[in-house]
Amino acid sequence: MTVNERIAAIRGLMADKNIDVYYIPNEDDHLSEEYTADHFKCKSFVSGFSGESGCVVITQDFCGLWTDGRYFTQAENELAGSDVELMRMGQEGVPAVMDFLIEKTPENGTLGFDGTVVSTAKSFELLRRLKPKQAKLHVGDDLTGMIWTDRPAMPGQPVYILEEQYTGASAAERIAMVREKMQEKGADVLIITRLEDPCWLFNLRGNDIECTPVAYAFAMLDGEKVYYYIDPAQVDETVCAYLEENGVTVRGYDDLAEDLAGLHDRNIWVNPQSFNSRLYSCLAKDNRLISEEGPIALFRAVKNETEIANTKHAHLKDGAAIVRFIKYVKEHVNDGDMTEVSAQNELYRLRAAQPDYIEPSFPTISAYQANGAMMHYTATEENHAKVEPRGFLLVDSGGTYKDGTTDITRTIAVGPLTDEEKMLYTLVLKGHLNLISAKFLKGTTGQNLDILARGPLWKIGIDYQCGTGHGVGHVMAVHEGPHSIRWGMGSPARPAYPLAAGMVVTDEPGVYMPHKLGIRIENELLVTEAEKNFYGQFLQFENLTYAPYEPQAIDLKYLTDAEIAQLNSYHEEVVRRLTPYLNEEELAWLKKETGKLERI
Amino acid sequence: MTVNERIAAIRGLMADKNIDVYYIPNEDDHLSEEYTADHFKCKSFVSGFSGESGCVVITQDFCGLWTDGRYFTQAENELAGSDVELMRMGQEGVPAVMDFLIEKTPENGTLGFDGTVVSTAKSFELLRRLKPKQAKLHVGDDLTGMIWTDRPAMPGQPVYILEEQYTGASAAERIAMVREKMQEKGADVLIITRLEDPCWLFNLRGNDIECTPVAYAFAMLDGEKVYYYIDPAQVDETVCAYLEENGVTVRGYDDLAEDLAGLHDRNIWVNPQSFNSRLYSCLAKDNRLISEEGPIALFRAVKNETEIANTKHAHLKDGAAIVRFIKYVKEHVNDGDMTEVSAQNELYRLRAAQPDYIEPSFPTISAYQANGAMMHYTATEENHAKVEPRGFLLVDSGGTYKDGTTDITRTIAVGPLTDEEKMLYTLVLKGHLNLISAKFLKGTTGQNLDILARGPLWKIGIDYQCGTGHGVGHVMAVHEGPHSIRWGMGSPARPAYPLAAGMVVTDEPGVYMPHKLGIRIENELLVTEAEKNFYGQFLQFENLTYAPYEPQAIDLKYLTDAEIAQLNSYHEEVVRRLTPYLNEEELAWLKKETGKLERI
Repeated sequence: MTVNERIAAIRGLMADKNIDVYYIPNEDDHLSEEYTADHFKCKSFVSGFSGESGCVVITQDFCGLWTDGRYFTQAENELAGSDVELMRMGQEGVPAVMDFLIEKTPENGTLGFDGTVVSTAKSFELLRRLKPKQAKLHVGDDLTGMIWTDRPAMPGQPVYILEEQYTGASAAERIAMVREKMQEKGADVLIITRLEDPCWLFNLRGNDIECTPVAYAFAMLDGEKVYYYIDPAQVDETVCAYLEENGVTVRGYDDLAEDLAGLHDRNIWVNPQSFNSRLYSCLAKDNRLISEEGPIALFRAVKNETEIANTKHAHLKDGAAIVRFIKYVKEHVNDGDMTEVSAQNELYRLRAAQPDYIEPSFPTISAYQANGAMMHYTATEENHAKVEPRGFLLVDSGGTYKDGTTDITRTIAVGPLTDEEKMLYTLVLKGHLNLISAKFLKGTTGQNLDILARGPLWKIGIDYQCGTGHGVGHVMAVHEGPHSIRWGMGSPARPAYPLAAGMVVTDEPGVYMPHKLGIRIENELLVTEAEKNFYGQFLQFENLTYAPYEPQAIDLKYLTDAEIAQLNSYHEEVVRRLTPYLNEEELAWLKKETGKLERI
Repeated sequence: MTVNERIAAIRGLMADKNIDVYYIPNEDDHLSEEYTADHFKCKSFVSGFSGESGCVVITQDFCGLWTDGRYFTQAENELAGSDVELMRMGQEGVPAVMDFLIEKTPENGTLGFDGTVVSTAKSFELLRRLKPKQAKLHVGDDLTGMIWTDRPAMPGQPVYILEEQYTGASAAERIAMVREKMQEKGADVLIITRLEDPCWLFNLRGNDIECTPVAYAFAMLDGEKVYYYIDPAQVDETVCAYLEENGVTVRGYDDLAEDLAGLHDRNIWVNPQSFNSRLYSCLAKDNRLISEEGPIALFRAVKNETEIANTKHAHLKDGAAIVRFIKYVKEHVNDGDMTEVSAQNELYRLRAAQPDYIEPSFPTISAYQANGAMMHYTATEENHAKVEPRGFLLVDSGGTYKDGTTDITRTIAVGPLTDEEKMLYTLVLKGHLNLISAKFLKGTTGQNLDILARGPLWKIGIDYQCGTGHGVGHVMAVHEGPHSIRWGMGSPARPAYPLAAGMVVTDEPGVYMPHKLGIRIENELLVTEAEKNFYGQFLQFENLTYAPYEPQAIDLKYLTDAEIAQLNSYHEEVVRRLTPYLNEEELAWLKKETGKLERI
């Protein structure tokens, strides 16, 4: 079936079921935001757009794909030839998808979607806003599923134990931490819905989602029992015994619905952003809901000492792989046969050679010049560019190791650069350095800090249409909340959140000029305590990432003396810290690459 | 009566009426936040603390005054000798007053306050939070009023018309603007509660509150009628005729309660933050409330072209007065008889000599050295310092003119400075300049920008315990929302709000070291449009304030080349723009004072 045929098939089903507007979100049944199992990629199946973010809305005379600035160029390419209209989120005149759903649903009409992949929070909002129109929701049918004959099955990969030397706390200790928060909150029951949360709680990892070591599972705790809802085929004897030791009962994935229906007269703590509407409908009305983000997201975000020590080690191994990679690219770009794909394969190989490597933490972005303007570009065997010996190769990549998760971007000069390219690279670097050197009082949010990284570009009328930074999980999803670094006001689904010591966050400003170039520089930073004095507790950042910036792309006239000193001092640290991980030739190359930069 | 006797008297009344905890806020019956008529200064009467911000809580064994960092030093001085405990807001271990009220109210107990000075929003929040304790609210009695025998009467000053040449729109046009918003919102009735709003709507000004040209009044609109609730003695024949021409009916101040009681089956738009609980209780239950900030606050905040042109002119007159003042201080500080009070009197005199001057826009802060650490210090005839020929004199002052409202702070070197004083002044200036030179996309809030001003101080572990900037009214209150520049997350009562072209905001970072020194530099800035391009609509700031910074306090080694260029260019503009307002001698002095600063 072509994309247009799929849309026609869904329109037929909509007519049968009297659905006026049908909404196909991007999430799975845990409301995971970016990476999901192929089983859940309904919006891609219907629209042909393969990006990790977006959603589709279908009416009898319209089909639109909403996606954000990171994906505009990719979506333009992938939607070409279909009747799917690209709705560029955040641009003037483009309605927010929620507003559009409300507007397009007629008086007394029906808005439909599959309730298993829409959160309770979103369902309630839609219901509230449809009320004045006396319109209904139709949430019991997955129309995409009905026409998707070769739909991939649920992944069902085995889970495994991540040892305490990497996590710093036992499952029993973590269960106790969670129960303490439940008591504070007056909750009898906690329903755990995010994919990462059972993994953190039980020190388990899985392999159900590409590049994210989690398994499809739910969990539920009360004051006495702990339940883990997962396909039993995913839990081998060792893990079974381990869970039993920790007082955890394994139940089937679909048993949660039944267990929820059995709850009565309880204070139930559940996150309406990740609790899907179908599961909500299983709960009896005599329960009282505490509708808030659960305690685990914050526990995960604030790393303990063992996690921090492990993460630091993972980043040094990773930095060594990056040094080898940059050296490889610069030494081989003139051979004439380098492509985005051959470069990224070399990087996969170099990382995989490091001890305790598990998998990439996300699909590598290896993007030459204009392709770098697509923030989440993926080069494939079928569709990629040759790397020419001029301009930039942008490489955003990361590894999941047993001791930590990395996420780093370096934009490499593969040959001569124009003055404009150098100016832009240097302004991106300026913002990146300014954020690293921030000091701020406890209570500060990422919204308060974003301008440090973005400001140098805004000053010349350029923006990057995404946040500056995201949290990073520990041997977990490479993107995690609750904190982030972005501008604006925050939203109910993604509220502003204060930074706290122990959090990890990325610092990744960039420039994206469609059909021209892409530049991004990204380190991971650890939030640490600085002085506490009369004014309060100050916090600051510590670099976790150690790998050289691009000296050929730096034009010192755009940096202050303090910024140049910060840059040179970082490069000295890169050499000092990576020395034990490099051979003599690599070290000699690195020292030359990071030689002190001085104004002429 | 001493303060302790007043507290004892209130405790007696509390016992009579079975009130366990009594709360005395700072607001008036319009929930004005800072400046109120003396009639409403209950917390000052009870506690002896004269600062403009704070509140009192009394139980049978505790009396506390909550106030914020601007007032800590002042409150310490004024509370000395009484049993009132100073609760330093925002410091570790100090509970938020709302939390404290809930905590101290016993199970089945009673929390009391005067409902006329507590907002509907706050009452509802307290009620909701007291529910688990089955505690009650007692809101019908003003206990302070019962013991305050010589309580000042309501002010009752006449209102006057501010001509259209100063406001740029007629009352009829403004009423139409408001009605359009009511229609969009589906509101049948708008209740106007903030003191500034009827003044803006009718182009009237009053004189009921010190330094703020407003009158105690309410207003109410429906689709046909417009009512103005004010003591009829305040409205003379000219104003009466003018209001009649504009279709406005004058009613007595207390008639609002009766008129509210007569509303049935209406959609009523009212701001729960400024609608007091007593008035709320007058509304029949068959109405539907739209509980949101009304449309006028934003209309007021975004100045029209006439208001902007007038404001610019007012600032030049004001700048000339400031130049004369700084010259006076520097030329006379060695005479040996200058005091904080004699200096501020000279400034009042210089401003009053300017055309179209009405009154100070707030009580001048003239604070020498250590007194400058009290952010809202007021020197009085009884209590003030001599100005010695060393260190800093901080002067924060402003004027209300018929063409605009000014607010400016200059910290003047009255003699030799230490290296530390110069360093601190220069870092304050650095932040002040960084904010002015910001460029930012539409949608940016003050929370996103605050760090530009605050960052240079945070880097050396210093904070100023207040926001960086506030909106400024047009011939109106010197502090206005909805926008501001501050860090953190915003709160329900003071949410983050995007900056928009036409808004005026102050830029006033500072350093406040108790018992040592205070430094603040403040300009008013206008938000204007910069380029609109692929990335969106950029905004930037334009200086409204033109007056010299303190060249003797600037240590260039703390500034970048770009900051020095910005500083010199501003000083050139000060000379260029003020030239028509100064005589030859004054201009010669200003040129010398603002001579180009260059690195040695």
